[in-house]
Amino acid sequence: MMRTRPLKVALLGCGVVGSEVARIMTTHADDLAARIGAPVELAGVAVRRPDRVRAGIDPALVTTDATALVKRGDIDVVIEVIGGIEPARTLITTAFEHGASVVSANKALLAQDGAALHAAAAEQGRDLYYEAAVAGAIPLIRPLRESLAGDKVNRVLGIVNGTTNFILDKMDSTGAGYQEALDEATALGYAEADPTADVEGFDAAAKAAILAGIAFHTRVRLDDVHREGMTEVTAADFASARGMGCTIKLLAICERAVDGASVTARVHPAMIPLSHPLANVRGAYNAVFVESDAAGQLMFYGPGAGGAPTASAVLGDLVAVCRNKLGGAHGFGESAYAALPVSSMGEVVTRYHISLDVADKPGVLAQVATVFAEHGVSIDTVRQQGKDGEASLVVVTHRASDAALQGTVEALRTLDTVRGVASIMRVEGE
Amino acid sequence: MMRTRPLKVALLGCGVVGSEVARIMTTHADDLAARIGAPVELAGVAVRRPDRVRAGIDPALVTTDATALVKRGDIDVVIEVIGGIEPARTLITTAFEHGASVVSANKALLAQDGAALHAAAAEQGRDLYYEAAVAGAIPLIRPLRESLAGDKVNRVLGIVNGTTNFILDKMDSTGAGYQEALDEATALGYAEADPTADVEGFDAAAKAAILAGIAFHTRVRLDDVHREGMTEVTAADFASARGMGCTIKLLAICERAVDGASVTARVHPAMIPLSHPLANVRGAYNAVFVESDAAGQLMFYGPGAGGAPTASAVLGDLVAVCRNKLGGAHGFGESAYAALPVSSMGEVVTRYHISLDVADKPGVLAQVATVFAEHGVSIDTVRQQGKDGEASLVVVTHRASDAALQGTVEALRTLDTVRGVASIMRVEGE
Repeated sequence: MMRTRPLKVALLGCGVVGSEVARIMTTHADDLAARIGAPVELAGVAVRRPDRVRAGIDPALVTTDATALVKRGDIDVVIEVIGGIEPARTLITTAFEHGASVVSANKALLAQDGAALHAAAAEQGRDLYYEAAVAGAIPLIRPLRESLAGDKVNRVLGIVNGTTNFILDKMDSTGAGYQEALDEATALGYAEADPTADVEGFDAAAKAAILAGIAFHTRVRLDDVHREGMTEVTAADFASARGMGCTIKLLAICERAVDGASVTARVHPAMIPLSHPLANVRGAYNAVFVESDAAGQLMFYGPGAGGAPTASAVLGDLVAVCRNKLGGAHGFGESAYAALPVSSMGEVVTRYHISLDVADKPGVLAQVATVFAEHGVSIDTVRQQGKDGEASLVVVTHRASDAALQGTVEALRTLDTVRGVASIMRVEGE
Repeated sequence: MMRTRPLKVALLGCGVVGSEVARIMTTHADDLAARIGAPVELAGVAVRRPDRVRAGIDPALVTTDATALVKRGDIDVVIEVIGGIEPARTLITTAFEHGASVVSANKALLAQDGAALHAAAAEQGRDLYYEAAVAGAIPLIRPLRESLAGDKVNRVLGIVNGTTNFILDKMDSTGAGYQEALDEATALGYAEADPTADVEGFDAAAKAAILAGIAFHTRVRLDDVHREGMTEVTAADFASARGMGCTIKLLAICERAVDGASVTARVHPAMIPLSHPLANVRGAYNAVFVESDAAGQLMFYGPGAGGAPTASAVLGDLVAVCRNKLGGAHGFGESAYAALPVSSMGEVVTRYHISLDVADKPGVLAQVATVFAEHGVSIDTVRQQGKDGEASLVVVTHRASDAALQGTVEALRTLDTVRGVASIMRVEGE
């Protein structure tokens, strides 16, 4: 089986992930060769700062000219771990044109331009693999695309951002507020100096787009994903959640409508019951729950980020792409045949947990209940607490369209007796 | 992409799993065709009892002559869901000889004859896929073999038998004894009339052999797996476990030795901390924890048995095998290049929880402690409880070889002051 001419690999980016990829390619060279059926050789490493010391990497391989590297023509596989849209996109398409397949960890690019990249790969007869783009080391894209290829996925519900899970877990376990928990995450290196991409849900939304696309065989772009960050979650929200036997997680949720005719994808904080497996996902771990017709409920759990875990996913893809190359085969390309419409958030059916500050006088509950009824939203439970002329009203609804729920909240805000809407949070996973 | 000539599938067995496979092939025909790139057609169904009514299956397809079906020569893929060694083994090799690739859910056969079957497949240039053989719907073989192909797996620790997990969960949550919990499992259809294969660990041992083989790229046969059933687990054991902040699970454990030079595989009941993700796996669910160098800790969770979940795994394999066939490619075959020696149970390093009934008089603890010291086993904690001249001593050890621990227990039995060894259980997952 083993051939002696090595497959040549170009590595674009040598940061936290890239340096781990290079390290493992060296230390596990014999195993990789045995599993692929040919040795793999690191043929070039493109970096921005060539003067940085890179342990274990032959300085002769290092270049700042990534374009020249992917154009060399003798490269079998390009590993792209630069991130961001450009120059990654152009480098990947150039790699395809010059004979290479690509393994990428680039969620932002895949979420934005996945269809075009898949088309470019198909046109040139190359592979495009990106297990590392979603939930780090957790095998998720391959199971969704291959293991469940004979099943019908109805729902993907996941914690796909480790930074926000660390913050929310900290708030839950210590009673800390958002800022305090974020500061700790930053100090420990779990959050970046500018945490926007994580805490505003952009990172999770990119992953949701990729997962929804694969799960539903439908193109879902980043713009199709409804996104709400978690910066406004308060210690009081966690107290409310606990009162309901819930905790709060930032969830990526991809759903097929009940009638099967459309899909939705969204990212927002939500209450989930403590009995749900996702409620127990601690710290910076990720986990994704998948519900399908035949398999039922599956969960995939593991480290969602970090150099070595992400490198593990990259190298699994490298083995697959190299094996395909040797066997003259191709892996799965884009599968978007179902082409289901992606509905807006208003059509999502969900439940709301709403805290209102209200006047403590007779008739308020009746007024509030009337607003819910007028919008066709059925109330599950109401809890009323009052003192000194002030009162709070906590309403948990039954399932209704998000549009109806939003309309209800807007109408509540106009009531004289409602002094403010203290918090609104969706309830999921029941 | 789509070709119109259908790929022909022969189904061997039409029981709980087979009937679900046939049903999904019919109801999801369009999706399967889109994902494969060609339609798939059920070309024959071999059964033992042809007179049984089979909803949705054309009676003209049903035959009792499985051999003739696999010899037809026009079959692209044979799905084997008969189970057992023969006639399944002969039918599979005959299928390979007559042009078909095989998807199987047969754990017993794969654990016993996996190497020979893989060799037969390779010789004829066919695929042999068997995701459904381990942990039902949970994608596990594909992630281990493909997603982690660039990583080094050190440990696989799993609940891979739903029947025993149901029984143990019931004992844990209700305080029921083994027999009572088994009776309930039988009444609810979770346990078979003869539960031996489940409760004595044979089923889990077969799965452990398959998982260890794939995880360590080494042939591991059923005979290599140390096996202890869970029929002797008592309500008292659960009380002891709770005292330690643990519960009890029947675990399949595949480990690489610390020096990396050998592997072990075993199935036995063990205490695991309540904080371990496997401790929260309820009812008949399965879950498998995988530890690797780069990815760290991953967990895969889902329904471990049942018609539809197992069919989901079978159909995922069917799609892969059909795609390979159309693309002229082959999937992963056996990977046993590492050929590590499989060590016996004595070399496994683990911890023991030992309950002793002892005489309630001075010096007993000193005597007992001396025996542990003589065998080189270090004690973690001792708890002593006594009344009316009788006492119990609960010892939890530090990590030591199983041989040293067994030797310690044998020596304890010979002490005059030790009236009996009430229970011995290993402690895992810490």
